[in-house]
Amino acid sequence: MEHRLEALEKKVRFLEDRLAIYQLVATYGPAVDGLNGESLGRMWTEDGTYSPGGFDPYVGNAAVAELINTSAHRSYAERGCAHVMSMPHVVVDGDTAVATNVSRVYVKDGDQWRVDRASANRWELVRNEERWQVRNRTNRLLDGSEEPRQLLRAHLSATD
Amino acid sequence: MEHRLEALEKKVRFLEDRLAIYQLVATYGPAVDGLNGESLGRMWTEDGTYSPGGFDPYVGNAAVAELINTSAHRSYAERGCAHVMSMPHVVVDGDTAVATNVSRVYVKDGDQWRVDRASANRWELVRNEERWQVRNRTNRLLDGSEEPRQLLRAHLSATD
Amino acid sequence: MEHRLEALEKKVRFLEDRLAIYQLVATYGPAVDGLNGESLGRMWTEDGTYSPGGFDPYVGNAAVAELINTSAHRSYAERGCAHVMSMPHVVVDGDTAVATNVSRVYVKDGDQWRVDRASANRWELVRNEERWQVRNRTNRLLDGSEEPRQLLRAHLSATD
Repeated sequence: MEHRLEALEKKVRFLEDRLAIYQLVATYGPAVDGLNGESLGRMWTEDGTYSPGGFDPYVGNAAVAELINTSAHRSYAERGCAHVMSMPHVVVDGDTAVATNVSRVYVKDGDQWRVDRASANRWELVRNEERWQVRNRTNRLLDGSEEPRQLLRAHLSATD
Repeated sequence: MEHRLEALEKKVRFLEDRLAIYQLVATYGPAVDGLNGESLGRMWTEDGTYSPGGFDPYVGNAAVAELINTSAHRSYAERGCAHVMSMPHVVVDGDTAVATNVSRVYVKDGDQWRVDRASANRWELVRNEERWQVRNRTNRLLDGSEEPRQLLRAHLSATD
Repeated sequence: MEHRLEALEKKVRFLEDRLAIYQLVATYGPAVDGLNGESLGRMWTEDGTYSPGGFDPYVGNAAVAELINTSAHRSYAERGCAHVMSMPHVVVDGDTAVATNVSRVYVKDGDQWRVDRASANRWELVRNEERWQVRNRTNRLLDGSEEPRQLLRAHLSATD
């Protein structure tokens, strides 16, 4: 019975990690489109980084939180926009993890929303006292170049 | 051992709730695009409501189920359309929960699909005898106005 | 206590299945857009099939893996594209399962990405020695015809 309990505890820990990472990734869109800098900053570690394709990297969670106040982001918000994450592929390795997915930014344009960005994302995550946070997010536009393809394929083989 | 079993039971209940809510939200698109009014109606409580941006609210799950027979929805279905939910941010509090996400409606237009709607959503959920259902869904177009932004940010801080 | 342990084991198995199926579906986009034929092939059983709307079916996982080398796919990849899966509705029945969702293909077109395909998907899955794989995927364009609507509604009622 001790053996079965231990096996269950290990499995439940695995499931908790996976769902905590889904929740973390699902926080990004509502935080940036809801202009909630506090929730956005708390997603990242204090020294965490975010490198969006076509822009300079943000270094430190205070800088990431300020992203919502940039003129580029305010212009998006005023026109009406949605940052949407696809369900990520997740590889957990102890207290670190990598989530791979595609993000899109939809921006209102007349009577429809145009897809202004479609990007590959690698989320490098770390567990800090039971909470998963982002240590680095790398985002690259899916523009036909090699780098975003490399981001997408790099972590697939670890679990399949 | 009793203590460990109790801890596991609590954790598993948390995980079950989260996955049941994902499944509930993932039912919406196939139900409306598959013109399955029965499955759609069963998502909501009997007195549940759905307030879509730009339209009058539907009151009661029988009214929600009839949504698929409105001329607006039939026109969408005839042209070819997809109602897609992003993976929600979920906060469970006992027998109630709030899920926050973004939805899009893609409609066929010539040789492509245009994004006819992109909206913020707040799903107010309730557990009824082990089944999660929608008590109210509020949907607002991401058109640059303040209300959808408020919907997106309102429930983030509860878990981060 | 034995009874509680057994109940937990059953519930955890259910949760593991659901998350393994999410992970499987979330592998598709990164595999095809990352041009990772090996990961793509490993998603399917050896004799598994993939029937994409508007194209001949791929029969066998070796054929599916070669999809990334077709001229149609290479053209997509060169222009910049994203294959995105919505969070699936999942029904598990012992060692088989059906996942239902919507997929979209975004292709770079000037300074935006156009939605080149929006499709209904039925994923027929099978568990092989603890690993879930695709036995058949049927994909049909949401073009206003009846077949994709039928795909979307067919498996909803099993769980709601």
